[in-house]
Amino acid sequence: MATIEAKLQALGLALPAPMVLPPGMTLPFPWVKVYGNRAWVSGHGPQNPDGTLAAPLGKVGLEVSLEQAQHAARLTALAMLGSLQRALGSLDRVASWLRVFGMVNAAPGFQQLPLVINGFSELIVELYGPERGRHARSAVGLAELPLGIPVEIEAEVAIDG
Amino acid sequence: MATIEAKLQALGLALPAPMVLPPGMTLPFPWVKVYGNRAWVSGHGPQNPDGTLAAPLGKVGLEVSLEQAQHAARLTALAMLGSLQRALGSLDRVASWLRVFGMVNAAPGFQQLPLVINGFSELIVELYGPERGRHARSAVGLAELPLGIPVEIEAEVAIDG
Amino acid sequence: MATIEAKLQALGLALPAPMVLPPGMTLPFPWVKVYGNRAWVSGHGPQNPDGTLAAPLGKVGLEVSLEQAQHAARLTALAMLGSLQRALGSLDRVASWLRVFGMVNAAPGFQQLPLVINGFSELIVELYGPERGRHARSAVGLAELPLGIPVEIEAEVAIDG
Repeated sequence: MATIEAKLQALGLALPAPMVLPPGMTLPFPWVKVYGNRAWVSGHGPQNPDGTLAAPLGKVGLEVSLEQAQHAARLTALAMLGSLQRALGSLDRVASWLRVFGMVNAAPGFQQLPLVINGFSELIVELYGPERGRHARSAVGLAELPLGIPVEIEAEVAIDG
Repeated sequence: MATIEAKLQALGLALPAPMVLPPGMTLPFPWVKVYGNRAWVSGHGPQNPDGTLAAPLGKVGLEVSLEQAQHAARLTALAMLGSLQRALGSLDRVASWLRVFGMVNAAPGFQQLPLVINGFSELIVELYGPERGRHARSAVGLAELPLGIPVEIEAEVAIDG
Repeated sequence: MATIEAKLQALGLALPAPMVLPPGMTLPFPWVKVYGNRAWVSGHGPQNPDGTLAAPLGKVGLEVSLEQAQHAARLTALAMLGSLQRALGSLDRVASWLRVFGMVNAAPGFQQLPLVINGFSELIVELYGPERGRHARSAVGLAELPLGIPVEIEAEVAIDG
């Protein structure tokens, strides 16, 4: 079995199904664009195992607590790994994480943005190790996110040919 | 004639002149940075054919309707294509669209951000086709955009040498 | 002496120490990710010479003036250069600036975002020259930034092997 997939299983973590869009919504773009030795990952949000959006939705610091937002960031990592696995065949093909852009649906005055996105980064580093999993990162507060998701994260990774 | 330029003409679409900045404003950066086999495109907004900013300005969901914002995103695609044509000589040199970051000047509570940025993505995919035009994408709500433009979009593309 | 470092000295500019995090805060990511012939730079904010966050903090246009924010953007450039120097050994290894994403902690209605980020871009172009220092750029207003910093900037650069 592939190494990263085995680590996920050992941690008791499963990757969710592809995102289920609300009725009538279609997206004219893929979740992952692969070109040459790179993959660019579209903005992902937290998903349930069946691919539906994971509750709670809303502003972090108001409708969503710090702890709930950290969990949402971890679920977003799993959703992104699911998309990468479908695009690449195996998560072992990710040679290195390069850039992570973490966006929090921030209530006015909520500044603990890095703590939220740590829920994403810590899982990636746990799975890929301190060198391959290390990524440049920003964690910032957006005014609005699609469908009211509390966290949205996009990324760029290097891949093996 | 170049293929993409011919498609634009067949669609009755013209690329606008370079952006006309407000009096006294200068920008210490280019609209496109070309390096190796990549081009990074600075944040663009909607322009009129003469390069001036296209009305309406303001918050989407308040001063600007969803339909107006979608049209602004389409105009932003044309402005970006104009910059790419000037930087590369021909739009056919874009080998593949890689990453699109779509920013909406969102009024509080406006969450239909993907629908807005679809005005950009659909035109790119129509022109470049489903493989070459496919791009990783995020569509998010910003607190403020320069000069009150309703939409700003930046991108990364692969180019032929 | 390295060229860029000599230019900094001639301008009377010193690079700050690594960022000093508030007590109890740790970051599971590096300030710079180097891979192949690229470096991705995490979001940086303005720092004092000792690595602490530089005052004033807060919303630009409300608690922080335009001039103070421009200075914060210039300090952010110095902080980023410090991180690049530690990651690469010498700032001369930056072959070209590619992409700069400038985020302003914008008070409602503050739209002079490009003027703020010019404090960053002008220093980079002064140090690296009009070709190597040129970068694609967006300058936008965020709802919240970590710790209330007025400016956060991330970047991608090409490096010599």
